[in-house]
Amino acid sequence: MRNIKLIIEYDGTDYHGWQYQPNARTIQGVMEEKVGRIVNEKVVLAASGRTDAGVHALSQVANFRTESSIGCEALHRGLNALLPHDIVVKSISEVEGDFHSRFSATGKVYIYQILNRSYPSALLSRFSWPIRCPLDIGLMNEAAAYIIGEHDFSSFRASSCGAPHPVKTVNAAFFTVKSAPFPLGLGGGGMGPISQSFIGAAGVEDPTCQFRKEEDLLIFEIEATGFLHHMVRNIVGTLVDVGMGKRMPEWFKDVLTLRDRKVAGVTAPPQGLFLKDVKY
Amino acid sequence: MRNIKLIIEYDGTDYHGWQYQPNARTIQGVMEEKVGRIVNEKVVLAASGRTDAGVHALSQVANFRTESSIGCEALHRGLNALLPHDIVVKSISEVEGDFHSRFSATGKVYIYQILNRSYPSALLSRFSWPIRCPLDIGLMNEAAAYIIGEHDFSSFRASSCGAPHPVKTVNAAFFTVKSAPFPLGLGGGGMGPISQSFIGAAGVEDPTCQFRKEEDLLIFEIEATGFLHHMVRNIVGTLVDVGMGKRMPEWFKDVLTLRDRKVAGVTAPPQGLFLKDVKY
Repeated sequence: MRNIKLIIEYDGTDYHGWQYQPNARTIQGVMEEKVGRIVNEKVVLAASGRTDAGVHALSQVANFRTESSIGCEALHRGLNALLPHDIVVKSISEVEGDFHSRFSATGKVYIYQILNRSYPSALLSRFSWPIRCPLDIGLMNEAAAYIIGEHDFSSFRASSCGAPHPVKTVNAAFFTVKSAPFPLGLGGGGMGPISQSFIGAAGVEDPTCQFRKEEDLLIFEIEATGFLHHMVRNIVGTLVDVGMGKRMPEWFKDVLTLRDRKVAGVTAPPQGLFLKDVKY
Repeated sequence: MRNIKLIIEYDGTDYHGWQYQPNARTIQGVMEEKVGRIVNEKVVLAASGRTDAGVHALSQVANFRTESSIGCEALHRGLNALLPHDIVVKSISEVEGDFHSRFSATGKVYIYQILNRSYPSALLSRFSWPIRCPLDIGLMNEAAAYIIGEHDFSSFRASSCGAPHPVKTVNAAFFTVKSAPFPLGLGGGGMGPISQSFIGAAGVEDPTCQFRKEEDLLIFEIEATGFLHHMVRNIVGTLVDVGMGKRMPEWFKDVLTLRDRKVAGVTAPPQGLFLKDVKY
């Protein structure tokens, strides 16, 4: 049996997540159907991990075993011709028989994008969480530093999480700012004054906050040995409370220490989250 | 009658262009319905110009006249609450009675995005034209310089164009490169070698070309006093022939001079095009 590894980019907006479901459109379901059609076998794709509905991937890794002798190049070509526009196979290679996308992984990197401006974005609505209150990136980074190292992340674990234990090691966790990102960096000219009247469906609404005048894309990057369910989104939702000035960075440390989901902030919405990389 | 000016951002992917059509979903149709519901009148929105199906806007300008006394802030808030996620009103202001979005405009700026890498993008498929052959931006800029100034643009005019005359003045036309754009700049780590086997549904396929190893977002910006139908897309399609090395920059000058659509290149697809700004 050959063992074939795929690296996949997808826009998760129109999918019910990675994992196969009999009555819903999922990335795994679509991928298995297209791969199966080409190799003429029923295939099962093992991914590095599930992504939830609406979550994206820059480089999801999956592998499958096959008796087919098809070349990687022909399979790559065929797959990208068959796949819908929101799923692209970036590369295909044959790997050792003992490689497993999930169990061989030594770490993963996620990013989370926050659009910080006074009104939502038509162009980035599927790829970011719009927050109109100005966020203090310095305070958020001060708070984020507390999760570096090995910790029990129960405070940021969804009740649905099936992981055997809540201890993970975080190697990096920080925000960077892109003040002229695509496609926002291209706009802005010719605008009148921005009226202070935005209500975004998914935006954070807080009548006490001031408005951010400029527009920034805040990118949170986190690398860890593994992640609990909703861990990144719960961390981001909690860091936003710090960024808004509602809480101090030290409070974020207390949240971590208390190992209690109820003390943390909201779960950030899925559309800002991207699986960026899987480490082996 | 008050005269109200709106600046609108939209993702045109799921619309049949700006202009109202009785049996199709258009930006104008959706906007007029939502504005009308708030001001409780039938309104007609005049835009700076139409955009075609699949074309986006960072700052489309439109205005309408109303007897309503509603404040701009309340209208702005109400509209963004009612509009779908792919249309956002960036600002609203009351303007002089003689302001007209189209006839008062003195110029417009468009941008066109080309994704230049060896495989398509799931994340940028609605916002760029994927071309896998490496494009020479120096040659394309050399060619683009020939259209600066006042010219007859008949070579780049769609047969459907209803403009009274084909002479326009171009003030700027150039490509820039973003080698780490959103969201592509966030990816790339952990990828295996890219197999040379991409066929993109909308991509340019040329078996003779080499593959671009890195990934670049090429952004063409053009400012002119006015535009003929498909003018930007025809210019970009023709510049790509130069960028691929199929033609020399001087050929592009000849195309312009011949005033014959048949000698120019293909019409670039709509999803790479953005109305960036309208000048008054």
